[in-house]
Amino acid sequence: MWRLHQFPLCPFSRKLRLLMGEKGIPFELWRENPWEGTEDFLALNPAGRTPVLHDPDKRVTLCDSQAICEYFEETVERSPMINGTATGRAEIRRLVALFDENFYFDVTAPLLHERMKKRLVLRQPPDSKALREAMKMAHGHLDYIDWLIDNRPWLAGSTMSLADLAAAAQISVADYLGGIDWKGHEQTLGWYSVFKSRPSFRPLLTERMEVIQPPKHYSEIDI
Amino acid sequence: MWRLHQFPLCPFSRKLRLLMGEKGIPFELWRENPWEGTEDFLALNPAGRTPVLHDPDKRVTLCDSQAICEYFEETVERSPMINGTATGRAEIRRLVALFDENFYFDVTAPLLHERMKKRLVLRQPPDSKALREAMKMAHGHLDYIDWLIDNRPWLAGSTMSLADLAAAAQISVADYLGGIDWKGHEQTLGWYSVFKSRPSFRPLLTERMEVIQPPKHYSEIDI
Repeated sequence: MWRLHQFPLCPFSRKLRLLMGEKGIPFELWRENPWEGTEDFLALNPAGRTPVLHDPDKRVTLCDSQAICEYFEETVERSPMINGTATGRAEIRRLVALFDENFYFDVTAPLLHERMKKRLVLRQPPDSKALREAMKMAHGHLDYIDWLIDNRPWLAGSTMSLADLAAAAQISVADYLGGIDWKGHEQTLGWYSVFKSRPSFRPLLTERMEVIQPPKHYSEIDI
Repeated sequence: MWRLHQFPLCPFSRKLRLLMGEKGIPFELWRENPWEGTEDFLALNPAGRTPVLHDPDKRVTLCDSQAICEYFEETVERSPMINGTATGRAEIRRLVALFDENFYFDVTAPLLHERMKKRLVLRQPPDSKALREAMKMAHGHLDYIDWLIDNRPWLAGSTMSLADLAAAAQISVADYLGGIDWKGHEQTLGWYSVFKSRPSFRPLLTERMEVIQPPKHYSEIDI
């Protein structure tokens, strides 16, 4: 069985877990703290990042969330998530990159640094200015998602795609860390609430990261 | 014809230019300074990053270097660059991400900040400590590339792939900015020298970025 090296608040591992959940691919979770940079982990992935997917029996190791998602798109027909015309597929991948890179660097990464790494590793209080800036950036990104949903049933078009999974993964981590103010983002909230009720999403919402507690609304489906 | 919005030292635009060159896809260059964040550019790409590929006649806009490379892999058969088995393709994409993300953030991005942005935009001298750190990180990455080439003819396997183009694109920008010390990296230098003589690479090597001059060896094929 696939062993997924990850930690509960890794947004890229969440994107992959959602994809594997939607496609019905079995896997077991393997807890990893990539910031420790252990030799064992760097031997699996020289990039030092989660997720890594490893099958000890078949001796196959796959690294990088996007490379792994593309791998399952190519090898598992069920629930295609990068589908449609070539231009439509480019639009899905554009949005995945927007969430994996821009949303992550503007919102998720600073929240993880301030609220998780400072708490668990550095033993420092969070910087309130950095938190405010991340929440402000989150508003800008949610405005864009609102606009997408005003124009399309799902983020990249008429069907659910990897763009939705990538966005939900980033938002769910930011929401866990108290970085999302939902006021004024009814469109995104509606889309996200539908998402939260999916069987692929439920295991993520019930998981906790050590001493860090999410706000009460985090795992509720109707908020 | 495709219009490629880019600036001469954008490593992601270089990756795309190499791919389009190898596949024989015609395009014209359109100079962009993404750090200015003009409304016209943000309307083309809300992520505010180069490259953007735009066809004004067909009214098609493609954003994100990896999404565009995947698009041409799907639509242009000539010179496949993400080829082979599903596992082999995952290995190509893993390495592309390693160069696009890790090499970029460790080496190319700090060099661009210190040597290009500070000179052209911020009008500040470079921070010599940051430059030393970037060059040290470059050594680590070149060690890994040396190891790959000791084990394989090309970075991802037996044929040239997008992994080679992504690595060459990052290295070429770092080399332009004086961030690569080739001593002790004979394997990588041999692979890179072969690369520099390819017709797809020549136009990149003769281009200059305003007042910033590359070291003498930069555009020479035999060094």
